[in-house]
Amino acid sequence: MRHNYKFVISYDGTRYHGWEKKPGIDTIQGKLENVLNKMTGDSSDPIELIGAGRTDAGVHARAMTANVILNTDLNETQIQEYMNAYLPEDISVNEVKACSDRFHARYNAIGKTYRYTCWYGTSKPVFDRKYVAILDKEPDIDKMKLAAMHLVGTHDFKSFCGNKKFKKSTVRTLDTINIEKSGNYIRFYFHGNGFLQNMVRILTGTLLEVGFGTISPDSVKDILEACDRSKAGPTARPEGLCMMKVDY
Amino acid sequence: MRHNYKFVISYDGTRYHGWEKKPGIDTIQGKLENVLNKMTGDSSDPIELIGAGRTDAGVHARAMTANVILNTDLNETQIQEYMNAYLPEDISVNEVKACSDRFHARYNAIGKTYRYTCWYGTSKPVFDRKYVAILDKEPDIDKMKLAAMHLVGTHDFKSFCGNKKFKKSTVRTLDTINIEKSGNYIRFYFHGNGFLQNMVRILTGTLLEVGFGTISPDSVKDILEACDRSKAGPTARPEGLCMMKVDY
Repeated sequence: MRHNYKFVISYDGTRYHGWEKKPGIDTIQGKLENVLNKMTGDSSDPIELIGAGRTDAGVHARAMTANVILNTDLNETQIQEYMNAYLPEDISVNEVKACSDRFHARYNAIGKTYRYTCWYGTSKPVFDRKYVAILDKEPDIDKMKLAAMHLVGTHDFKSFCGNKKFKKSTVRTLDTINIEKSGNYIRFYFHGNGFLQNMVRILTGTLLEVGFGTISPDSVKDILEACDRSKAGPTARPEGLCMMKVDY
Repeated sequence: MRHNYKFVISYDGTRYHGWEKKPGIDTIQGKLENVLNKMTGDSSDPIELIGAGRTDAGVHARAMTANVILNTDLNETQIQEYMNAYLPEDISVNEVKACSDRFHARYNAIGKTYRYTCWYGTSKPVFDRKYVAILDKEPDIDKMKLAAMHLVGTHDFKSFCGNKKFKKSTVRTLDTINIEKSGNYIRFYFHGNGFLQNMVRILTGTLLEVGFGTISPDSVKDILEACDRSKAGPTARPEGLCMMKVDY
């Protein structure tokens, strides 16, 4: 039976060249589609798995959402079991649900939460070293919180877009930026209606510049208004980033 | 200045052949001694780092304690910085303290805590897959707790010793075994005055047999009394085991 299914997926992005499939290269979408094709066994009807977003190389996800039209007699539980049996240990299907044919994981997404995790200390984060960005200086959290206030809201985020050739609107709404320190960890939570390419990493890289005292909290307002990528901070390393949740 | 130093060390044991140094093989002790030798730069006075215990290949530690006599002008902070700069990313020195010359990390240890972590579920533990043993059945926690009651106390643990040629006393005192379920995780905490080779892993393997219903909780008493390794359960996989704390 032909049905549209919603998938919730976790992955450790360390050894992948991002979500989006590319011929001859290991990607998350590529790995998932390979297993789905094997499962349905119908090469005349190639699988197209639609993700809520496209994470960069090395970026992780705890709950990427995707949808896919499948022609299969397996039930939801059996589809999940099949996927987890054949997927590598760094990709997990956490949920499979039959859904309306109209459900589109990307177009229907109304919000997303990303988390960026930094680590600073005199020891080393041995057990989660692949999921944090190690800092060599301790950032000032209060300064970063002040800077973040300028970024929250509906703005043209062109200064924070990693794709210089991007032709569409770069206006997005950032609902919240929460910055939390817990032990050696500094975690940034971003929630918004959509994110441009590298946007969370450039926002984090810029906030860290503020935290290190390289630029002032208020200068972030000027960076935003400049609509010029070269004014913002560096793109923070991919390993600290994780897609946490997609809202529908 | 020549001093005895206490080190507290974390490591991800995945890619090491255990704690104990062996020529031509990557071990935790070997890696640490190499960096210590480089730091002191005195080949006439080779370093001997004494660990509180010898973890098996693939076993992890959050707080292995060790001591070492060093002839160095560096202070404690500088020693730690040097170590963490030259050690690989999966070994961390969390603490360095000058201590009495009489302090011996192995002989003076009066208690140790080990944790064994299992995981069971329909998804997969993508982010900590190297630190858990994945189960394909769900064990009965209450049965395992009943069985654990027979193991706590001072006993001859010969049935739970992985070294058949071990000539010394196999009597040990296990103070507590705590078994906790939290979401998809089942964690076993063992505290005792000392542990035989593979003892925690054989205890866990046997408790899991009880949890799976293969053997009864009360049969653990017979296994203990048999003083025969072949009566106990299998040696649980190394990746679930972590040395948590050494008491002095």
